Amino acid sequence: MAQRVRVHCMSVSRDGIGAGHDQSFERPFGTAASPEALFSWAGATASWPNRADDGGTRGFEDHLTRDFSRNIGAEIMGRNKFGPLRGPWQDHEWQGWWGEQPPFHTPVFVLTHHERPSFTLADTTFHFLDATPQEAVEKAKAAADGKDVRIGGGITTLREFIDADLIDEMHIAVVPVEFGDGIRLWQSPDELTDRYHLERVTAPSGVEHHFFWKR
Amino acid sequence: MAQRVRVHCMSVSRDGIGAGHDQSFERPFGTAASPEALFSWAGATASWPNRADDGGTRGFEDHLTRDFSRNIGAEIMGRNKFGPLRGPWQDHEWQGWWGEQPPFHTPVFVLTHHERPSFTLADTTFHFLDATPQEAVEKAKAAADGKDVRIGGGITTLREFIDADLIDEMHIAVVPVEFGDGIRLWQSPDELTDRYHLERVTAPSGVEHHFFWKR
Repeated sequence: MAQRVRVHCMSVSRDGIGAGHDQSFERPFGTAASPEALFSWAGATASWPNRADDGGTRGFEDHLTRDFSRNIGAEIMGRNKFGPLRGPWQDHEWQGWWGEQPPFHTPVFVLTHHERPSFTLADTTFHFLDATPQEAVEKAKAAADGKDVRIGGGITTLREFIDADLIDEMHIAVVPVEFGDGIRLWQSPDELTDRYHLERVTAPSGVEHHFFWKR
Repeated sequence: MAQRVRVHCMSVSRDGIGAGHDQSFERPFGTAASPEALFSWAGATASWPNRADDGGTRGFEDHLTRDFSRNIGAEIMGRNKFGPLRGPWQDHEWQGWWGEQPPFHTPVFVLTHHERPSFTLADTTFHFLDATPQEAVEKAKAAADGKDVRIGGGITTLREFIDADLIDEMHIAVVPVEFGDGIRLWQSPDELTDRYHLERVTAPSGVEHHFFWKR
């Protein structure tokens, strides 16, 4: 089976916004965009990777969070998902938002113009890569042990990979809220239907799940 | 994580029927019930276990067929799913409907009052068990290597396991057709909501997917 490049459980508002501006340590999603509004549908499910207890729902949306890690061998993320720091690293103390047990369990490639040494937390190793999206996909596929590669975001990075036509399938959750201002994935999902099949299914939560796969 | 007992991709008609009477070699689903009507939604997806080529959709319903095998370590099925033969085995030539490469890839426990020797086809081993549903679940869990157990049907077997309160979660596809007569899973899915949470989501295919999990 050929390796695929996949996107799972990425959330945007009805007006296409997945993060705010002015990201900081206190506000990983910046101003305006509310992470609670974006991710409460996923956080309610039993299989959400960040869940610490045994609870959670096991309905439709749990079938979507289950797929986050299934057959994934590597993740690619932008530097803004890794942290709020910009420019050259002042030191290497910051090791991401996720503490000692990051929810990735695979190699993670962080795209940045400022490289730094790789490091490992539990079963996740972070590599730092100054590369084009194409080069990053090649590296990640080589590291993924035959499995698929997840593009983990954030929104700016995801859009770059969409524009470079590197993504095979995508699950985007459109949550029933409008942010007005922020970092925008799209004006409308319909702008991708020349290249992708698109199915929309509304969950009882009110979230409209969008499933894209290459034509 | 505790081992769970799960049901995936079981299909019934809008009037609750999942198979016809008078099962035979020519008609594995008996008269009246049409396997095409029951399973075309699943057969269209990329991840349907019986798919032989690289095609298929990767939308909402593919996320459901993906889950058929995820973290499953054993299946329990009734004798009528294994084949149309009734009563004592005349010989042991019949080895199921699935040819040399059955789509299970785990131990399979076939419930029957007429035991026969186990046999292996590729990575599936069939065992024959004269046991109660409770005993079958215990055996299957012990054989599942810490993974979950799937109740694979048919409809009569599934209903026995529901009535014995042995199932933790269930995905039932209700297809937009009525058969009128046949083997019935339920009068209405609502008869299970005293014991289960229930979410209903309609796919673009017209199939109404029902997700049950224990209260």
